[in-house]
Amino acid sequence: MSHSRERCEARLQAVGGIAAQDARAAAALGGLEAAVRYALEAGGKRIRPCLVYAAAQAIGHAADADAALDNAACAMELMHTYSLIHDDLPAMDDDALRRGRPTLHKAFDEATAILVGDGLQALAFELLADAQGVSAKGRVAMVRVLARASGLGGMVGGQFVDIAATGSTLTLPELQGLHALKTGALIRAALSLGAIAAGAADDERSALETFGQHLGLAFQVVDDILDVEGNAATLGKTGGKDALAGKTTYVSLLGLAGARAAADALLTEGLEALGRFGRQADPLRELARFIVQREA
Amino acid sequence: MSHSRERCEARLQAVGGIAAQDARAAAALGGLEAAVRYALEAGGKRIRPCLVYAAAQAIGHAADADAALDNAACAMELMHTYSLIHDDLPAMDDDALRRGRPTLHKAFDEATAILVGDGLQALAFELLADAQGVSAKGRVAMVRVLARASGLGGMVGGQFVDIAATGSTLTLPELQGLHALKTGALIRAALSLGAIAAGAADDERSALETFGQHLGLAFQVVDDILDVEGNAATLGKTGGKDALAGKTTYVSLLGLAGARAAADALLTEGLEALGRFGRQADPLRELARFIVQREA
Repeated sequence: MSHSRERCEARLQAVGGIAAQDARAAAALGGLEAAVRYALEAGGKRIRPCLVYAAAQAIGHAADADAALDNAACAMELMHTYSLIHDDLPAMDDDALRRGRPTLHKAFDEATAILVGDGLQALAFELLADAQGVSAKGRVAMVRVLARASGLGGMVGGQFVDIAATGSTLTLPELQGLHALKTGALIRAALSLGAIAAGAADDERSALETFGQHLGLAFQVVDDILDVEGNAATLGKTGGKDALAGKTTYVSLLGLAGARAAADALLTEGLEALGRFGRQADPLRELARFIVQREA
Repeated sequence: MSHSRERCEARLQAVGGIAAQDARAAAALGGLEAAVRYALEAGGKRIRPCLVYAAAQAIGHAADADAALDNAACAMELMHTYSLIHDDLPAMDDDALRRGRPTLHKAFDEATAILVGDGLQALAFELLADAQGVSAKGRVAMVRVLARASGLGGMVGGQFVDIAATGSTLTLPELQGLHALKTGALIRAALSLGAIAAGAADDERSALETFGQHLGLAFQVVDDILDVEGNAATLGKTGGKDALAGKTTYVSLLGLAGARAAADALLTEGLEALGRFGRQADPLRELARFIVQREA
């Protein structure tokens, strides 16, 4: 996992520079570039890129061929980062702290935060189009998967439902539906992209996506648990916000112990979907355990 | 042109529905879908989609094969529409009127406007990935072109520079550089997409892009003229804003007559770039004249 993280960090540093389409305006883009670097260097767990590498390994992709996966891994992180930047805006979740530092609109300003988010989304698709070592057909498939997962019927839709539902109590299926879109779709997409980039057969890809679906839900259950148990120092973001905001969470519906049991059950189901894969899928299994057992 | 507009309108209506990745959340997405439809039905001149069709015709693409161009044309309009929605936000240009109606954040709310913009961007790339009748290689090329044109080194960068420059006086080359990114990059991309979708040779595509570059600048010069001459009723948006906001414009630098002369010169240069094309490029020439001679 640390190998994957390092690859991803290096690639993110490299894409942070802006190559302007017009030389006359290049100099004026320095301020935007600084904001982009601030957003990308903020760290985070880089879970989605690691899932891309681990999914490819699960179907026998050699670690030394990781260059073909770098763009897909990096695109996942760019998409995730843009969504955090926009979610933190005053008109959305209005958060001042992210990854242990002031949110982008606090460190810079709102207009810059909106634009950096918009630009990172475009950059994610540019990286997929430029994914060396992946066929044109594979690149098209990756664009389609990421666009659908992140768009109106995926992540963006989930964020809309989340905001609309604030203050009202959801049922468990409604809460699961919300998170399947808001966080689940993108986590599942990370598995799909790894599978596509590594040339997986349809049934292999499908198994990895089933795993991703369970993992995505587990991820959110754990997030809800940590929001109650954690504090800003360990989380790197404001804790206890869900209760204050009157949000339905897995903890509010199931209690702390119930939520913990649900996360464990989802982990078990996810690992079962990996049953057909041998030792090659161990990095993926390890990642799944890390996600469910993490403390931040 | 009216044929192209109708094709585009029909396609935009069709893509306005949201197919949720998760059935449990589908019902809750109705509110988002209403906002998407509001954004897409607002009309506008649909100039960028028309440029896609006309560019393809210029290289001999038959009008009855337009189905292969619909997704590319529609993607251009989605990208343009998302940029207007975000540009109108209070933290950006803070505008209340667009295309003759309340802006999206006025008709709905800011969070919805941010999310609809984000979602339309993703949908633009999804349509390119799904462009029937275009090879996988062509689709990848279209994604690359649109991502670069709309991203940090293109449209988003131009908007950043525009905001940063407000209140200070720019030189003519600085102003041209700004607009080459802010509006020029996307107009040029419309020509590129039409060329790619229709299978243009490199030199044909290059000639169309040169035309697009001049046209993009001309478009902005005319916009500046109309901002001074027009009023909200004909423009469908708030007029006279540039001067109030202390923005450098072609009119503030060159005067009204000088700006008009510059627009005409750019039109002439653009049409020269089309010299190699025969009567097939007449729709493109007609569009260029419409853009420069429009009164709204």
